[in-house]
Amino acid sequence: MKLKYYPATLELKHTFTVSSYSRKTTPIVLTEIEHDGFIGYGEASMPQYLGESHDSVMNFLSKINLEKYKNPFELETILSDIDKIESNNCAAKASVDIALHDLIGKLVNQPWYNILGLNKNNTPVTSFTIGIDTPEIIKQKVGEANEFRIIKVKLGTENDKEIIETIRSISDKPISVDANQGWKIKELALDMIYWLKEKNVLFIEQPMPKNNFDEVAWLTDRSPLPTFADEDVQRLSDIIKVKGVYSGINIKLMKCTGIREAVKMITLAKALNMMVMLGCMTETSCAISAAAQLSPLVDYADLDGNLLIKNDVFTGSKIVNGKIYLNSMPGIGVTKLE
Amino acid sequence: MKLKYYPATLELKHTFTVSSYSRKTTPIVLTEIEHDGFIGYGEASMPQYLGESHDSVMNFLSKINLEKYKNPFELETILSDIDKIESNNCAAKASVDIALHDLIGKLVNQPWYNILGLNKNNTPVTSFTIGIDTPEIIKQKVGEANEFRIIKVKLGTENDKEIIETIRSISDKPISVDANQGWKIKELALDMIYWLKEKNVLFIEQPMPKNNFDEVAWLTDRSPLPTFADEDVQRLSDIIKVKGVYSGINIKLMKCTGIREAVKMITLAKALNMMVMLGCMTETSCAISAAAQLSPLVDYADLDGNLLIKNDVFTGSKIVNGKIYLNSMPGIGVTKLE
Repeated sequence: MKLKYYPATLELKHTFTVSSYSRKTTPIVLTEIEHDGFIGYGEASMPQYLGESHDSVMNFLSKINLEKYKNPFELETILSDIDKIESNNCAAKASVDIALHDLIGKLVNQPWYNILGLNKNNTPVTSFTIGIDTPEIIKQKVGEANEFRIIKVKLGTENDKEIIETIRSISDKPISVDANQGWKIKELALDMIYWLKEKNVLFIEQPMPKNNFDEVAWLTDRSPLPTFADEDVQRLSDIIKVKGVYSGINIKLMKCTGIREAVKMITLAKALNMMVMLGCMTETSCAISAAAQLSPLVDYADLDGNLLIKNDVFTGSKIVNGKIYLNSMPGIGVTKLE
Repeated sequence: MKLKYYPATLELKHTFTVSSYSRKTTPIVLTEIEHDGFIGYGEASMPQYLGESHDSVMNFLSKINLEKYKNPFELETILSDIDKIESNNCAAKASVDIALHDLIGKLVNQPWYNILGLNKNNTPVTSFTIGIDTPEIIKQKVGEANEFRIIKVKLGTENDKEIIETIRSISDKPISVDANQGWKIKELALDMIYWLKEKNVLFIEQPMPKNNFDEVAWLTDRSPLPTFADEDVQRLSDIIKVKGVYSGINIKLMKCTGIREAVKMITLAKALNMMVMLGCMTETSCAISAAAQLSPLVDYADLDGNLLIKNDVFTGSKIVNGKIYLNSMPGIGVTKLE
């Protein structure tokens, strides 16, 4: 197997603001693994808060030697070896995991939902994310979210109620809320959640700053809506720590090193009676389609990263009537645009 | 997909005695699932203590309609539907799970260790099981176990020390012990485990009667050897209950409904930092080879059920130098003998 990779920059349709920062572009690295006449495609997406960059990803990828593996199917060995090269670099690791999965699917001529034993009709609806913005822009974005059945909003500032009221002035669709660690006082967070429940909000992601397990457990225990860990759960080993703290977890390929670990995380979370959502970064249709292959396993999806960019370089899974639609192409189901 | 099944009876080379009963034969049901010109093979094995019989398995299988599923790859849906038909019948369910896995492997022309991303060279050594018997027969059986690197003995009677001393009179190979719930008093069990450790015993399976979680937790906490749950863990949902009670679990396809649930159980047990062994019933090389496909994931294997019978009707995985050897045939890697 031969690994190739090159940097690129995704341009966002709108400046994206969450409770801690704003951005207009996202750096990515695209990977290709060639074997036996097939090419598997992968991607690392590096929004700045992950601490990765073009340089850190390319540097990590330069340390990987895939030529020593004779059998591309040995994912457990290959990915475990790669994981040990450095302790972080999760997006870089995911870019290799995704490309290997794409390659293997092509080698057996099956999409990954088939290899994983999933029914492609059981995909969840996916939400469309609206960042923190002015009422005018928010209304415009809600209009763009027309074909989605859930609107996801980023809260965690002074204007939380105003943002929800703005959306409710033009739409009665269910809303999911990502507070991005923005609420600092648990009693106020609980009051807010009660208020949000009356506004037809479905669940709350990462309500409080990470590592506040006692306070979030207090909140979840009293919350009329499910709570999901995002920043508090990156990888498989983090899940057991948040049992009893959150109602569910948000799994993202870029946080957890890719498809293989994500599947294990879903198995573990379900065994612990926790809910699961699949999230994403700003990504092309490559990484989004990879995550979409697993989506029949989860309760909610927030896989809209490819829809927020101007310069996607792949086509893959689609949104049809607000629901993820998986094509029947092998691997992760993507075509590279020339 | 078309499901066919027929009963058979396996004849043991030796009368097999554990702490609670003896037997000379084991009833099985063999399954075949045909689709697209391929046949997937499966098997249910029903040692009497499981409460299943030819009739109960055939009756269960008669309720399954596989023709309604257009896509054989949809294992999550198909097996979940089958699981809901009745609450027990785990061996019957496993016979369908195994046949479906064999079929899917043949459809993609890959052995399951490849589909699962495993390295076939990472298979564990497997133990050879010696039932409770006279010193003479025990010596004879230890002789038959010549190519194995671990001897597994069934203890749990008055003669435990005598059995171990008999083996140690002719062999210094590591021994694993299955007490089959035979030890009733935790302090005596702990004394016995200390004695066994001096005799180069590796671990203890199901030392005490099932559902004695407090006493087994006490024992595991003090034991110089790891303890494994067998009768105390049947399915995925049982594992979380024995965290902190046992050091590990023994997974058997006939207990847990098959390969798909077994893989989830391995993921969960490892995430909980528990050890895993793969066990078996008296089975043909069909069910043994199915379990062997997963064996690169586990710490220990006890997959010798096919070696204890006179009338195997399949060839599949082998034991080479005491280690499981996986062939490169697709599916579960078996050939039916005519």
